Amino acid sequence: MTNRINSKNRELVERARQVIPGGMYGHESVALLPDDFPQFFGRAEGARLWDVDGNEYVDYMCAFGPNLLGYQHPVVEQAARAQALLGDTMTGPSEAMVTLAEDFVGMISHASWAMFCKNGSDATSMAMVTARAHSGRRKILVAKGAYHGASPWSTPNLKGILPEDRAHIIYFEYNNLQSLADAVKLADGDIAGVFATPFRHEVFADQTDPSADYAKGVRKLCDDVDALLIVDEVRAGFRLARDCSWSLLGVEPDLSAWGKVLGNGHPISALLGSEKARAAAQSIFVTGSFWFSAVPMAASVATLKLIRETDYLEKMIAIAERVRAGIGEQAAAHGFSIRQTGPAQMPQILFDEDPDMRVGYHWAGACVRRGVYMHPYHNMFVTSALREEDIRKTLDGTDAAFAELRQALPNLEPQTKPAVLARIERARAA
Amino acid sequence: MTNRINSKNRELVERARQVIPGGMYGHESVALLPDDFPQFFGRAEGARLWDVDGNEYVDYMCAFGPNLLGYQHPVVEQAARAQALLGDTMTGPSEAMVTLAEDFVGMISHASWAMFCKNGSDATSMAMVTARAHSGRRKILVAKGAYHGASPWSTPNLKGILPEDRAHIIYFEYNNLQSLADAVKLADGDIAGVFATPFRHEVFADQTDPSADYAKGVRKLCDDVDALLIVDEVRAGFRLARDCSWSLLGVEPDLSAWGKVLGNGHPISALLGSEKARAAAQSIFVTGSFWFSAVPMAASVATLKLIRETDYLEKMIAIAERVRAGIGEQAAAHGFSIRQTGPAQMPQILFDEDPDMRVGYHWAGACVRRGVYMHPYHNMFVTSALREEDIRKTLDGTDAAFAELRQALPNLEPQTKPAVLARIERARAA
Repeated sequence: MTNRINSKNRELVERARQVIPGGMYGHESVALLPDDFPQFFGRAEGARLWDVDGNEYVDYMCAFGPNLLGYQHPVVEQAARAQALLGDTMTGPSEAMVTLAEDFVGMISHASWAMFCKNGSDATSMAMVTARAHSGRRKILVAKGAYHGASPWSTPNLKGILPEDRAHIIYFEYNNLQSLADAVKLADGDIAGVFATPFRHEVFADQTDPSADYAKGVRKLCDDVDALLIVDEVRAGFRLARDCSWSLLGVEPDLSAWGKVLGNGHPISALLGSEKARAAAQSIFVTGSFWFSAVPMAASVATLKLIRETDYLEKMIAIAERVRAGIGEQAAAHGFSIRQTGPAQMPQILFDEDPDMRVGYHWAGACVRRGVYMHPYHNMFVTSALREEDIRKTLDGTDAAFAELRQALPNLEPQTKPAVLARIERARAA
Repeated sequence: MTNRINSKNRELVERARQVIPGGMYGHESVALLPDDFPQFFGRAEGARLWDVDGNEYVDYMCAFGPNLLGYQHPVVEQAARAQALLGDTMTGPSEAMVTLAEDFVGMISHASWAMFCKNGSDATSMAMVTARAHSGRRKILVAKGAYHGASPWSTPNLKGILPEDRAHIIYFEYNNLQSLADAVKLADGDIAGVFATPFRHEVFADQTDPSADYAKGVRKLCDDVDALLIVDEVRAGFRLARDCSWSLLGVEPDLSAWGKVLGNGHPISALLGSEKARAAAQSIFVTGSFWFSAVPMAASVATLKLIRETDYLEKMIAIAERVRAGIGEQAAAHGFSIRQTGPAQMPQILFDEDPDMRVGYHWAGACVRRGVYMHPYHNMFVTSALREEDIRKTLDGTDAAFAELRQALPNLEPQTKPAVLARIERARAA
């Protein structure tokens, strides 16, 4: 198992180092991960993933979200292929854009319109600009440490970023109404919008579920000062509910930003809004070369239909809870104390007494070596395509990884990646 | 011809009005176009496009650029389909990303590395952030009226945009070294980068070719103050040269932003850079959910190979010059004075003595009604897929459109769209 073949991955890593800054960038770089993680992948199907050396994994990252219903889902791919034979990026949009907007708006209680784009960052940035256009006010309230994309106003890394890029962003503590009220006060009447993630899902940190009282309090504060409430569904969308995630807490936003899962892996994101925000959305100018392409829209129409008409959500939650329970039992049996936070279908697994994360890193690496792709610091994503044999392979792998960890524990090397230590520190401070 | 069927388009426009702000947004909205232009398309192949009612067009917009080699190009689509059967959006990138970076860097003289993204705006924004990270300085110089994407720092519409979003952008006159030198002086040592488009291609205006002296002067000014020179190839890339467009003028930038044509319609854009800028690019954090997807990369590998190994460019230019010459002769024969500016393969056609553009609008509408998709205010794009019969259909259509215009001229209604009049005014002021 430790003799896995990885020569192709090593060769590609070397070649990439020549022509890609740092060898890789962004959220799919393995620079902060244990060395067992491959950088390059060759194939994906259902809940399974193969790296370029042919090593097979049950995948708990799901492309960092997009794989909701299974890689290569036959119904979604059939819709995409049929549209591709007609046209994709053309001189104007296709009928699929209208159908998609109608279907999507029909599913999301607060929404009466939709605009489509490519990146999650496009959707959150459009939400910010729309909120400012709505009232002509400037301040945008964002939870401390929250990730709303990699645009200059929100990227977690300040290299190349100016104070002006976030001059009118005010930060507050997630799930803390007093902190939000203080931020509203600080905005001093100049408030345009408040961002909310459905639950707190930051890297290197436990996830936090908001209380219904908190969500309702956010809504009321927004109403009191006529600010638009923006729910950022890019990461959580359709993994908690078939509607906006905060509908579970009885709260409807004015705007919601969606991405990742919308086309089950096809590149598309969206901003949805209520009637109240329509004129503002209409007044801004945003666009992109591929925002009107038909194939991802056809794939999204098919994905939304499956979301509406199948029990993917109930199945996904049931499977995710079985896996969570199994891992919990194994950890206890092997004498480890772990924290499994957030919804089971978007799990974060962190170890107690693991200040530099050497323990969690070793366990995740041991899982990967056994064909179970678990992430040590980023929330994971479960797909509804997991089958009985996937669950069996998962729990066999995680159990053996705990056993290996138990053996290795006394001699674990300290965390040596300075960037990892810096991120742990930053997460602790947030 | 004027009895074209457009019932399906009309129905979709009505449905879209309900669920999309303003009915459509961005550069593919027909809101500013003559009423003859359909909003929705059903099919595309080669150089031809069909609207949702089945009306057929020789397409001179090419999806606003992406269609370089022909819609549904068999070699590109075969590469995309083969990759789609393996995997697209996965938990990490595929081998195609490395191959693409190697191939692309191998073609562009100034480049030693590549980063891929989705929107042209992603690439230009990454260039700006990279330039600032490189020197720690702030000012970015941009030609007045130049379009570098729809991000808050560059969108042409100020709704929802704050002064801070462009606090450190300084504007200068394109193709005017003195104006650039003045802007450099204004930056007062705090200069990070200078944007340049290969040639001036703004809406509602004649296009301008820069002189080689100008391009060399820009390079020298950048070198003198150690600012990064950024060429924005998003619109012009691979329609002027197989290298960076300013290589034709003997100038190499430090960074170049690419998009649109890279995957011949598949969604992908890129930032390329020289060795000097590598460390800065490595230091920033940028990412997107679909930036590592394999299908557009496989399509781009195939597209770049066709760019290298075929005479697409020479063919495209030869065809474009024949069409330009033909239209010029027809205009003269019908007694019209027109300006055909920019490279023939990215033509802009404007009429003399047409202050509110009613003449150009009528002609473009008459072309569209005859199955020749010509744009009245945005530079157009020629594809190398144009065949003899396309050229014949084009010139038959444009000739008849001139004849119709001659008849209609005395009774043309004045321009009534206020947004069009405002854009004409803005272009005139720039």
